[in-house]
Amino acid sequence: MKTISRREFAGVSAAGLGLAALPVRAQAPAGSKPVGYAAIGLGTISEIFMRSCEGSSSAKITALVTGHPKEKGEKFAAQYGIPLTSIYTYETFDRIRDNKDVDAVYIGLPNGMHREFTLRAAAAGKHVLCEKPMANTSAECREMIEACRKAAVKLMIAYRIQYEPLWAEAVRMIRAGEIGEVESFQGGFFNQQRAGAWRLNKKLAGGGPIFDLGVYPLNAIRMITGEEPKSFTGIIGTREAGDRFAEVEQSMEWGMKFPSGIIASCSCSYGARAPGYFRINGSNSGLIFEPAFNYDGLRLRGMAAGKPVDIASPNKHPYMFTIQAEHFANCVRSNEQPRSTGEDGLKDILAIEAIYKAAGSPIA
Amino acid sequence: MKTISRREFAGVSAAGLGLAALPVRAQAPAGSKPVGYAAIGLGTISEIFMRSCEGSSSAKITALVTGHPKEKGEKFAAQYGIPLTSIYTYETFDRIRDNKDVDAVYIGLPNGMHREFTLRAAAAGKHVLCEKPMANTSAECREMIEACRKAAVKLMIAYRIQYEPLWAEAVRMIRAGEIGEVESFQGGFFNQQRAGAWRLNKKLAGGGPIFDLGVYPLNAIRMITGEEPKSFTGIIGTREAGDRFAEVEQSMEWGMKFPSGIIASCSCSYGARAPGYFRINGSNSGLIFEPAFNYDGLRLRGMAAGKPVDIASPNKHPYMFTIQAEHFANCVRSNEQPRSTGEDGLKDILAIEAIYKAAGSPIA
Repeated sequence: MKTISRREFAGVSAAGLGLAALPVRAQAPAGSKPVGYAAIGLGTISEIFMRSCEGSSSAKITALVTGHPKEKGEKFAAQYGIPLTSIYTYETFDRIRDNKDVDAVYIGLPNGMHREFTLRAAAAGKHVLCEKPMANTSAECREMIEACRKAAVKLMIAYRIQYEPLWAEAVRMIRAGEIGEVESFQGGFFNQQRAGAWRLNKKLAGGGPIFDLGVYPLNAIRMITGEEPKSFTGIIGTREAGDRFAEVEQSMEWGMKFPSGIIASCSCSYGARAPGYFRINGSNSGLIFEPAFNYDGLRLRGMAAGKPVDIASPNKHPYMFTIQAEHFANCVRSNEQPRSTGEDGLKDILAIEAIYKAAGSPIA
Repeated sequence: MKTISRREFAGVSAAGLGLAALPVRAQAPAGSKPVGYAAIGLGTISEIFMRSCEGSSSAKITALVTGHPKEKGEKFAAQYGIPLTSIYTYETFDRIRDNKDVDAVYIGLPNGMHREFTLRAAAAGKHVLCEKPMANTSAECREMIEACRKAAVKLMIAYRIQYEPLWAEAVRMIRAGEIGEVESFQGGFFNQQRAGAWRLNKKLAGGGPIFDLGVYPLNAIRMITGEEPKSFTGIIGTREAGDRFAEVEQSMEWGMKFPSGIIASCSCSYGARAPGYFRINGSNSGLIFEPAFNYDGLRLRGMAAGKPVDIASPNKHPYMFTIQAEHFANCVRSNEQPRSTGEDGLKDILAIEAIYKAAGSPIA
């Protein structure tokens, strides 16, 4: 199989391979001001988000919200040319309503804090780009949607895979019938978490690895099928003795069936080290992403339209975050609905709740 | 990652990579007579079995049992130097007890006929090598085990993967702790069946694709863990309209949990075209077979003992069948228990029955 080169698969530049309809960087119109983001929570994911806006003409970091205004706040303020008056703490955050340089917030906080800061951002009149998973419960998601609706601010969930050009190319192949009728999906994502990590704290994380990792194949299957799963199975596994998995389970395998008859099985774990994968099985051929959900280096293999497919994504991290930040900025500027809405986030949490219900006790 | 060459990974020759403990061809002692097999049912799988015995010093085709004694019987008799008096029909089969050239039978019939011909072979005093899946039901499996026990003949189920050297190497890596603690498995096998095929006939096949295809990852997981699954989930899917899947379902996804806490999700389909896969996820690293269950061309990738693994099996079809035929011949000659027993076959059918129970209606 050949590997399509950077020249052939142009990725974010939208040239080559008929990528016109694929996610592309949304440049700001000439002379217009970039959309200003306040980054809330200055952990790893927010650092990536901030870096992804460097050099963008449409998205710019203009404020910081942090529990460590001296250490983290002043460091990143210097790095991104942000005035010290635009550094907020979680206590002073609500004053951001008076900051004209801030159009939107990026919420890179633990899941259990998404609801609170979405509500406070909406109350401050700021648009909300919130990390996945949307929240700990479907009830929280509904509150977030309602708060943004009432405040007339936009709400987007940061499903970066929906903005990834190679994934968009796979979706194009599938929708064009190039693998025949889609029959099933299998996907998994695995990432070790150390003892003490917030993702192992149920109050902060909402639950186990399906919240942080399993949501990737879940959202991808819903994106490709355009359907909502109607029945569920779940199996929870915690092999490891000791305290690491005292609050959330180590691993989960789950199954789903969709109204069309499409079926799926998925996996996720905080205890295993293995490459993530995503398989789409059609009546004529199959496609395989592996790695599937990494920050870069994605690879799509298989057969489509009767021909071998082997495409390595040429794009470098944090390109998905850049496309995402610019997409939401463009939606804010043009008053358009973002691609990955709060309703999309809610539907994943509803599925996760149904999977836990099918699995029984969340720690087994 | 490097691909280990034929020289390095010697496969059936048992040289290289510390393969001493791996499945190897069981040569007959000098001067001894090969074990004589009657091939029952001369379809595709029996043709492969007969071909796999060509040139073997320990296994030889000495009789044929067929519904087409003129066409198929005489053709293969000529090809394998079998006297015309050693061609039997399903009606005359029981006379095989008087044929001193026949030590054992190879049952390459549809699943629904395994029980009958195992019982008749045992009654005729012949050892039984029976294709997988063992039978349509666990009750049939138990009858077969009991009949062979009473007749003091050996019974082996033809799980060719258990005799495959690259799989044995993966088992060695896992048992040596080279991927850490095993946490989960994902495996799938997909193969189109045309309308009219016997595998789509419930009476002949026992059920849907889990009988013919799903049994591969199921048996492999049981082989690696040495455990029996204790809880099950199942989701059945039949997308295709029309008659092809009127008696058995098109696809199935299922989950299993083992007493140690290991969990698994698996897939199979008679409607999809996609490569089979098998993933073993450990606390330190993962291993991936893809293709996993084909007749040859198997490849094992991943990490073990902290180093990249990428081994392509150098062996050519029908090597697994040859190792298998010679293993059982050796067991017959040496009065030893075969590796893949009737009890092993029964345990897979018990799991399949539990998976169908978990899934509800077998055609949904």
